Amino acid sequence: MKKVRVGVVGYGVIGKRVADAVHAQPDMELVGIADIISDARMEIAVKRGYDIYCWDPAFKDSFEKAGIKLAGLDADFVKLIDIVVDCTPKGLPARNMAKYKGIPMITQGGESHSAHDASFSTFANYEEAMGKNKVRVVSCNTTGLARILSSLDRAYGIESAFVSLVRRAGDPLRTNRGPINGVVPVLGVSHHGPDVTTVMPQLKGKIYSLAVAASFTLSHVHMLQVKLKNVPANGKEDVIELWNKTPRIITRKGREGLFDTAQLVEYYRDLGRLRYDRPENFIWEETIDINDGNLYFIMDVHMESIPIPENIDAIRAMLEMEPDYLKSAFITDTALEMAKEESCYNN
Amino acid sequence: MKKVRVGVVGYGVIGKRVADAVHAQPDMELVGIADIISDARMEIAVKRGYDIYCWDPAFKDSFEKAGIKLAGLDADFVKLIDIVVDCTPKGLPARNMAKYKGIPMITQGGESHSAHDASFSTFANYEEAMGKNKVRVVSCNTTGLARILSSLDRAYGIESAFVSLVRRAGDPLRTNRGPINGVVPVLGVSHHGPDVTTVMPQLKGKIYSLAVAASFTLSHVHMLQVKLKNVPANGKEDVIELWNKTPRIITRKGREGLFDTAQLVEYYRDLGRLRYDRPENFIWEETIDINDGNLYFIMDVHMESIPIPENIDAIRAMLEMEPDYLKSAFITDTALEMAKEESCYNN
Repeated sequence: MKKVRVGVVGYGVIGKRVADAVHAQPDMELVGIADIISDARMEIAVKRGYDIYCWDPAFKDSFEKAGIKLAGLDADFVKLIDIVVDCTPKGLPARNMAKYKGIPMITQGGESHSAHDASFSTFANYEEAMGKNKVRVVSCNTTGLARILSSLDRAYGIESAFVSLVRRAGDPLRTNRGPINGVVPVLGVSHHGPDVTTVMPQLKGKIYSLAVAASFTLSHVHMLQVKLKNVPANGKEDVIELWNKTPRIITRKGREGLFDTAQLVEYYRDLGRLRYDRPENFIWEETIDINDGNLYFIMDVHMESIPIPENIDAIRAMLEMEPDYLKSAFITDTALEMAKEESCYNN
Repeated sequence: MKKVRVGVVGYGVIGKRVADAVHAQPDMELVGIADIISDARMEIAVKRGYDIYCWDPAFKDSFEKAGIKLAGLDADFVKLIDIVVDCTPKGLPARNMAKYKGIPMITQGGESHSAHDASFSTFANYEEAMGKNKVRVVSCNTTGLARILSSLDRAYGIESAFVSLVRRAGDPLRTNRGPINGVVPVLGVSHHGPDVTTVMPQLKGKIYSLAVAASFTLSHVHMLQVKLKNVPANGKEDVIELWNKTPRIITRKGREGLFDTAQLVEYYRDLGRLRYDRPENFIWEETIDINDGNLYFIMDVHMESIPIPENIDAIRAMLEMEPDYLKSAFITDTALEMAKEESCYNN
């Protein structure tokens, strides 16, 4: 089987994870990564054996000075790849576009929906990205919401949803971020509810979101109320069973020693997960409740890793490598060692 | 006018504030404060000129060693007062009860509702405490919720309410509290929704709450969805007008330089408010929205000070000093220099 040749531009929080994930896939070849900065991050790419390209010839010297051997420059890179995953900071992908000369391009959730052929969530709208040229994988929070809401919408139908997001101050490496002691409300409806409708248009006018940012770095936490069209016969047990069968969603009891986000992180550190990544939605079982037709729960969303599997699936959809979203998810999750039983990937 | 003689037991976070508030009232006399510990806190009481009683004779020596002159012991204290406000830590008021020998007693939100004649919120159920002997002032979060929900229930009727609480890790002085970096979900429905129904029984079965605690100390923040029976004709402007006329509720625009809880605290520090206390509910105007019959908003609740005015009103209700909750609120708020125009205190 000929592997598709994937390039990753921007080797930051998302880019380095996408690169590792592409590298792990059986049907993809990581051609290399491209960046403009030759700091300690690049040493990691070297250790991984990834080819490194300088994304801007003006920065070529800095790589050479740092002793980083370049595989080539931006123009060389683009010639070698079938598809690019642009993980550069917000706003830059639009400026990079001209360089890509029309090769299929994936961007991240910070970019604008309207500048793309489609926004993407594996479980919400995989088919919509089939054969498309410019696709935006929705952000961490939206990816988490689209996963959980699409599972509920399929199983029970959603009448309406309200989510309160408690966002982390900054990623763990952002020492320049705040708040360091306080809560910052988003002044108005947060973008998360509307953003979900870019991949689940059936929720237009049915989802509302409020958000605050607060003084911690490990993950986002969502509190949800979802009004279901059909209330499950056996109540919360049915919902837990549904989620146990749904890829990329984990429910566990807090009293198993996973009482909070820090204990969750410690568990994944002990497991040996690379970078203690938690690309799965995590729901505390004790918080799942059905009351007056509304489903309630609290969910952990690991902002650094949650959209990574979706980036991989987006490649398969855009290049029409696999028409079935669940089959793509199974390949992705198996390669990332996060797969559930294969039966969870059948419709 | 003969002033009622009030005693405060427990000179901690709540007790010291209640003492100051009682002392400021025109119709009350602070007989003194009682505690068992003679640390730096007591120096503040001395500076204020408050009589200090030792609440447990076994600790008498420690006051003497610290140079704190005692006005008397527990038994002396109880003989002098018409009513006691017990601000000791959770669980202790039940043990203190025998010492009070039947004098009217107010406790705080950590105590159990069922052990009292009534739970209390000035704006929700003032009348219920009239002439009662044992009254519990509901907690900070519940006080904040009862204020805002009673204003909405009176004006528009409440069909249902859902609140997501983001709780502070600990009060500013609690260096031993956490989380220091993380989010701790309450595992199940939080007690706040049910607790509101102890003062607003009309909301039984209509209010649900989820809560997390996170890594900051300045205040609690609530995100609310309230389904109104009658949607205000002019939308959010009507709600802002309602709250502007409601005592102990402030709405301001975040973009006035009050973008977050830290800026809010700084504003009150600059104002010169004692201890930068914010006993008012604070709502960010930009977050107020009406969508599909639901009212949404984000609210700041200063846990250390918000139930203080309610403690004062509870005294007037229990001792039948004033039958009208708004008149009591006006006396309280005027004395605490937080009164709105007098017209806001008319029905």
